[in-house]
Amino acid sequence: MDILLIGASGTIGKAVAHELGQRHRIISAGRSSGDEHVDLRDLASVTALFERVGPVDAVIATAGNVHFGALAEFTPEHYAIGLNDKLMGQVNLVLAGQKVVRDGGSFTLTSGILSDDPIRYGSSASMVNAALEGFARGAAIELARGLRINVVSPTVLSESLAGYGPYFRGFESVPAARVALAYSKSVEGLQTGQIYRVG
Amino acid sequence: MDILLIGASGTIGKAVAHELGQRHRIISAGRSSGDEHVDLRDLASVTALFERVGPVDAVIATAGNVHFGALAEFTPEHYAIGLNDKLMGQVNLVLAGQKVVRDGGSFTLTSGILSDDPIRYGSSASMVNAALEGFARGAAIELARGLRINVVSPTVLSESLAGYGPYFRGFESVPAARVALAYSKSVEGLQTGQIYRVG
Repeated sequence: MDILLIGASGTIGKAVAHELGQRHRIISAGRSSGDEHVDLRDLASVTALFERVGPVDAVIATAGNVHFGALAEFTPEHYAIGLNDKLMGQVNLVLAGQKVVRDGGSFTLTSGILSDDPIRYGSSASMVNAALEGFARGAAIELARGLRINVVSPTVLSESLAGYGPYFRGFESVPAARVALAYSKSVEGLQTGQIYRVG
Repeated sequence: MDILLIGASGTIGKAVAHELGQRHRIISAGRSSGDEHVDLRDLASVTALFERVGPVDAVIATAGNVHFGALAEFTPEHYAIGLNDKLMGQVNLVLAGQKVVRDGGSFTLTSGILSDDPIRYGSSASMVNAALEGFARGAAIELARGLRINVVSPTVLSESLAGYGPYFRGFESVPAARVALAYSKSVEGLQTGQIYRVG
């Protein structure tokens, strides 16, 4: 398969590239690293990416930012960061990609455990991760040509505990290599409309 | 209790006003109807609403628009309608209201069955409804002074079948009066972080 992987330089992205790169051709993309550069927040940039890369069999997104902060200090502009970046960035991949991905191909997006299991400062992450899961359930039944869509929802990564551990006390972490298996299941299996919770 | 009800002129809003108005004072608000006018999409308008109304014991939102359309024809601007209106409109009520609602008071927002049970043309509704539920789970644990937040997720209303029935074939409808009970449970009970699915 030809697999377009956006966010390839991140911790999950690297693990996904390692797992799927053993059997498939990976085209890596990122905001400022990888084979191709793209700003997911801009549909024109995403459309241009697909024009350069051409048809692929799978699109994986492991990219996306949200703002973390106290609910009492949150502004609409803070929520807009996550809505424009992690949510609509990944949605833009589906909007543009549905015309380009080969028949039966797949989209695999990334949400996160906070959709169901909230933490302090995480109201935007809970919002955006849940939104991605709702979108995928809705999009799965409308995609044409046998195209599929799934979401991977990982808990905190073992590799990220040094940085984020204090915000995730009591959460069991998971190594990125285990999270990568869910992307393999989505891309190399036939399921659609699924949320793979890893952790 | 003093209850601020935004969306009071809608089918659910009228049923909620009927149910809770028997025991409490309802201040009705809407974009162009009710005791007070407000544009939920604009935080300044919401802040001004609370300045006019003063402290209340409960805030209920039964208002919010999303775009319906084929996934193949959706644009980012179509998704922005629901994100700015139904999602951030209700979130703005919490952002502004958390400073004004009385200790132990509640926010009750409205999502909808499409978060879990999608229909054709409904990818934005699935996204936005799920986002509201994720936000409420996240906000519930951060709200101060015993403030609470719940979401009511109704299925299609019996009163709306004449208009929307063809999009909801096979869905059991529910009368708005039954949906109104979930708002009563949220406002008059003590639960928080709950999604009340009615249907």
